[in-house]
Amino acid sequence: MESNLSFGRVTIPTDVDVVNETKEILKRWGADAIRDCDGTDFPEELRNVNAKVYSTYYTTRKDNEWAKANMDEVQQMYIMTDFHNASEETLRIHLMDHLYPDMLAVNTRDDISRWWEVIDRTTGEVIPYGTWSYDEESGDVVISPARLYHDYTVSFLTYIMWDPVHMYNAVTNGWKDVEKQITFDVRQPKTRAYSMQRLRRYLESSPHVDVIRYTTFFHQFTLIFDELAREKYVDWYGYSASVSPYILEQFEREAGYRFRPEFIIDQGYMNNTYRIPSKEFQDFQKFQRREVAKLAKEMVDITHEYGKEAMMFLGDHWIGMEPFMDEFRTIGLDAVVGSVGNGSTLRLISDIKGVDYTEGRFLPYFFPDVFHEGGDPVKEAKYNWVTARRAILRSPIDRIGYGGYLKLALEFPEFIDYVETVCNEFRILYENIRGTTPYCVKRVAVLNCWGKMRAWGNHMVHHAIYHKQNYSYAGIIESLSGAPFDVKFISFDDIRENPDILKDIDVILNIGDADTAYTGGENWIDEQIVTAVKRFIYEGGGFIGVGEPTAHQWQGRFFQLAGVMGVEKENGMTLNRDKYNWEEYAHFITADCKDEIDFGEGKKSIYALDKATILCQREKEVQLAVNTFGMGRSVYISGLPYSFENSRLLYRAVIWSASDEENLERWFSSNYNVEVHAYVANGKYCVVNNTYEEQDTIVYKGDGSSFPLHLEANEIIWYEI
Amino acid sequence: MESNLSFGRVTIPTDVDVVNETKEILKRWGADAIRDCDGTDFPEELRNVNAKVYSTYYTTRKDNEWAKANMDEVQQMYIMTDFHNASEETLRIHLMDHLYPDMLAVNTRDDISRWWEVIDRTTGEVIPYGTWSYDEESGDVVISPARLYHDYTVSFLTYIMWDPVHMYNAVTNGWKDVEKQITFDVRQPKTRAYSMQRLRRYLESSPHVDVIRYTTFFHQFTLIFDELAREKYVDWYGYSASVSPYILEQFEREAGYRFRPEFIIDQGYMNNTYRIPSKEFQDFQKFQRREVAKLAKEMVDITHEYGKEAMMFLGDHWIGMEPFMDEFRTIGLDAVVGSVGNGSTLRLISDIKGVDYTEGRFLPYFFPDVFHEGGDPVKEAKYNWVTARRAILRSPIDRIGYGGYLKLALEFPEFIDYVETVCNEFRILYENIRGTTPYCVKRVAVLNCWGKMRAWGNHMVHHAIYHKQNYSYAGIIESLSGAPFDVKFISFDDIRENPDILKDIDVILNIGDADTAYTGGENWIDEQIVTAVKRFIYEGGGFIGVGEPTAHQWQGRFFQLAGVMGVEKENGMTLNRDKYNWEEYAHFITADCKDEIDFGEGKKSIYALDKATILCQREKEVQLAVNTFGMGRSVYISGLPYSFENSRLLYRAVIWSASDEENLERWFSSNYNVEVHAYVANGKYCVVNNTYEEQDTIVYKGDGSSFPLHLEANEIIWYEI
Repeated sequence: MESNLSFGRVTIPTDVDVVNETKEILKRWGADAIRDCDGTDFPEELRNVNAKVYSTYYTTRKDNEWAKANMDEVQQMYIMTDFHNASEETLRIHLMDHLYPDMLAVNTRDDISRWWEVIDRTTGEVIPYGTWSYDEESGDVVISPARLYHDYTVSFLTYIMWDPVHMYNAVTNGWKDVEKQITFDVRQPKTRAYSMQRLRRYLESSPHVDVIRYTTFFHQFTLIFDELAREKYVDWYGYSASVSPYILEQFEREAGYRFRPEFIIDQGYMNNTYRIPSKEFQDFQKFQRREVAKLAKEMVDITHEYGKEAMMFLGDHWIGMEPFMDEFRTIGLDAVVGSVGNGSTLRLISDIKGVDYTEGRFLPYFFPDVFHEGGDPVKEAKYNWVTARRAILRSPIDRIGYGGYLKLALEFPEFIDYVETVCNEFRILYENIRGTTPYCVKRVAVLNCWGKMRAWGNHMVHHAIYHKQNYSYAGIIESLSGAPFDVKFISFDDIRENPDILKDIDVILNIGDADTAYTGGENWIDEQIVTAVKRFIYEGGGFIGVGEPTAHQWQGRFFQLAGVMGVEKENGMTLNRDKYNWEEYAHFITADCKDEIDFGEGKKSIYALDKATILCQREKEVQLAVNTFGMGRSVYISGLPYSFENSRLLYRAVIWSASDEENLERWFSSNYNVEVHAYVANGKYCVVNNTYEEQDTIVYKGDGSSFPLHLEANEIIWYEI
Repeated sequence: MESNLSFGRVTIPTDVDVVNETKEILKRWGADAIRDCDGTDFPEELRNVNAKVYSTYYTTRKDNEWAKANMDEVQQMYIMTDFHNASEETLRIHLMDHLYPDMLAVNTRDDISRWWEVIDRTTGEVIPYGTWSYDEESGDVVISPARLYHDYTVSFLTYIMWDPVHMYNAVTNGWKDVEKQITFDVRQPKTRAYSMQRLRRYLESSPHVDVIRYTTFFHQFTLIFDELAREKYVDWYGYSASVSPYILEQFEREAGYRFRPEFIIDQGYMNNTYRIPSKEFQDFQKFQRREVAKLAKEMVDITHEYGKEAMMFLGDHWIGMEPFMDEFRTIGLDAVVGSVGNGSTLRLISDIKGVDYTEGRFLPYFFPDVFHEGGDPVKEAKYNWVTARRAILRSPIDRIGYGGYLKLALEFPEFIDYVETVCNEFRILYENIRGTTPYCVKRVAVLNCWGKMRAWGNHMVHHAIYHKQNYSYAGIIESLSGAPFDVKFISFDDIRENPDILKDIDVILNIGDADTAYTGGENWIDEQIVTAVKRFIYEGGGFIGVGEPTAHQWQGRFFQLAGVMGVEKENGMTLNRDKYNWEEYAHFITADCKDEIDFGEGKKSIYALDKATILCQREKEVQLAVNTFGMGRSVYISGLPYSFENSRLLYRAVIWSASDEENLERWFSSNYNVEVHAYVANGKYCVVNNTYEEQDTIVYKGDGSSFPLHLEANEIIWYEI
């Protein structure tokens, strides 16, 4: 299908009750694809319009008949109970406490003595089966004798009797009398064979469908609800719902060591992305990625056999499909679509290689939470578009689209108008930058335990959700998503494997709290890591540490690179040392800061060593400081929530730490609300106003020449170089 | 000497230039003792007044002739250099960098290959001698080959060529052309013999002196100045200036294992009181206490031989003389005198057992920093007196006194007047409460790694000095110093030795930051400790945790008593868990709080578990919460600086956690600015206004009966029971 500046690259939702309106919107927005959603149906009448048809396909649910006939192959999830104190010799722990009763069912089919684990959390010891047993009638694990005043937990397997996303959609949209969809496990032998037939049957019976939108493949990220149907636990990256004895026995054979539930349970932390990953969990992830990729490829190949495209939704059952990992390219997917919450989540999609195209699902979804009387969907749409646009200008998705109930959107004509302008703006933008790499001022690398596996998703718990504890760090990733840098995500293991990777980097960033996977914890006492990073800086590299970078208590220091950064944390151990370095200095990095800098949550008790230069301290707690180390430079920032002003601060920090201040004014806007992006190969550049007000600025071109410019609210202006 | 309500129990300073004025002040203040100070001389003319004469005696200085003739027995101090990065194969570290050159001299007399240590702080490895050497001419340790981009430190011995307190006094008072007093080491064989003779000579030549005020005995707490003569490092409890090869070889023989400089250096943290003490450091402290006590006893015995009293100043060279430890009683001292900074430091003195009397040196010292034109010594004196009075009413010192240059004080007649009222008030107070134990509402125990050894000095770095990182914790100790509780300080080892000590306690407090000696760190993963404390609470005990109590990352928890306290810290590892418990409740504990509670620095990221009750959270960070555990109760407080309002909050927290709310109004004042203390054995009680304004209150007596009362500013009113 061809696209041009008024047609194409846009997907819209539809339903049986809005056939004519769908046709109208197709025309107005220049849409060239139509999709259904969970809870909608594709109308017969639209089968012949000039648009591709996407159809959501659920590999793991919407077939309760099969699920009920094969209960042994229902998907499973590891759960750890709360901690229970033993105040008597016999301790009873009710497994289903605080879990939504219809969602999970305790799995007693498999050998509980092998697949469950009762742990004394006071000592860390595993309690042998026999000292504990399961009383099926009461639903209690009974530990006897328990050691008085010790805490115990039970790790156990459950069947997923109501698909968590289906439950979420049902609860959120208030669906009544809906049949709870059971999640079956395509990786199990019977279901695997059945699922391939089921897919073929579906493909055969859907001649009008062009694109199978897989939602997603096989394993749901961790999502649990409590007894009141409230979200209890969510990890968009969680692997705890991708388990079963069948799979784990395969893993054991491959790994060559015995599986323990604790590999998944991880003291109850469930290997969330803040945890420094254990070897066993990394082995398990690798195993899952390989197995999931193999099976996904089978489905993709079948899809192609029927002349249809295979598109993956980046979410829901996407575990094992990490798109930046090597296995992903082997699957042969045609496209990836994902929800765009901000710039970072845009690049989660747009940076994917090895597919023909990527598509972003923009906010707001046409759901009643926004599209109700008094709602302001235009405001949300504007915010979402302008936030994502920064990132699109660095790494474009190939298509945009919307989801939900079109009927709801139609009641907001201003919204329909606004999205029309967005669609047009996107097509122009895409035409101007397609096929080229935008000009990159610097090469920066975010260093953590995850590297490319969690690229752009750092500090994220659930998709683009705010947490008081993460926004001051996630802000850096968001700034980077639209900054003119070549951004890499590297892991400590990457450095261990090949320290030369640092040769292609100008500035390393290390962002987050102490002893988390995002700063690295004990990796900083590995001399191979420390010396590689110190050498990189000493020889002229830049380092930007945010929060508690390089922190791990060891050998007289909390910040292992205290000597490089020139800052250290006062954790009581150095209160005896007098600290005289408190004066603040004006600096290149803060030259564009107008008011008090917003460090978000900041950090307490950071002080500067003697030779560091403080740019900002508050009540004798350093928030921003710089230091030199050999030929290199370091910047410490206590936290940096996303804002245009903070993006500028980070930009200047990168330039300064790379010792390149004299080239600041290249493809640059004096006003930080406006950004300049150059596409040298295409001979284009653009100036973009990221705000909802008009702006004036001086625009600097690549040769340093400049001109003044006035921009309307949100305006993007394209130039030839 | 007899005292009465207008005479006695007061010591004043004197000097040769204020003979008549001294006589006048003796009369007005009813003083019965006169003292000299560092830098003053005792006037001949006062030898026959009706007052005891104290004379400061310096066991370790004021005899440079001896010191210079015996340089091998000058006192020594372990120093660690800064961290030095090896950017080349040969790394030179200049030892005296950032040290005041006249104060310390590198000791090369003793075998440096044995007594120094060069450590690779990147790996923690000790570098063998030979790979490093000392270049005496340049003053550099030369490490070759050094491993590139590793950090190195040198631990080395220095001689103390200028006594740190003498230097401090000289710098602070601007003394010119003063001969720098060298600190000699009485524990060395030649100096030991000489010092006993020197003491006898002094005693013989000082017939007018009644009391020898030792300043103190043998080892200075750690006090170091930088190249600009500014304080560089101070630890009022520091042992690093109590070392020498002679002493350390004795220690080796006693301990039965080889000494390492790192036992003292401790990664550069120098075993400060925030560090969880190592076994080796505790062994060394015990050894020092025994040896110091033995030698001090020798001097005390000589003093008695000459018919004079031996008084110890609690400060300066007091290391090894910890007055709450068993060795102290064996010394036979007559008295202890110490500086009173607040209630806590008052009780550092007044709680000492095994001496005939204790004396408090009140602030301000008559030094030019306060007694200058425009200075307000009355304000300081009032603050000091009223603050200390709370503690005196719980545990009285036997005498009060002042120090410094009397001449300066005489220029402030209002100050002279005010102190006169203080002296009279003290004598009445003392008369009313002497020999009895004040009524104690509850028995509370502060639990940390130090126990009684650091009683009342918890969180203190230098004597009563404020730090942003400690005032929110020290505030609790200050509150306790004047509260009607029987306060114990117990250590984890105390519980290990005898868990039954908890039977005599109503409420346990654990106060401070994670992984410090004040909360206990890894002690909380010792099941013996955890189960003993949990049992204590479960069976009805109270627990009050402040800051990061019981914190040590282990087995899925940061707060090891999270289940007891009902709170946990969000360190990123549990962001995935939805947290619904945020509602605040009115409570018995906060019933007297008028405005926003001042939690000082507070704590970030504390959240409540489901069953806890939140009394205060700010921006979804819990500051105050309560919980029940079995029959017991727990209170979590994020921090509590000292104030009358906060003292009341703590008081109520103790009562509530001990499940005794119904007895709140016993010996109680409805207005928290006023306190009631009962001395049942003496048939007295008093009501005391702690503020500088008049106050109205309801006074509750021991039987619950009450009456209204109006008090003038600072007033104390005595009643018969």
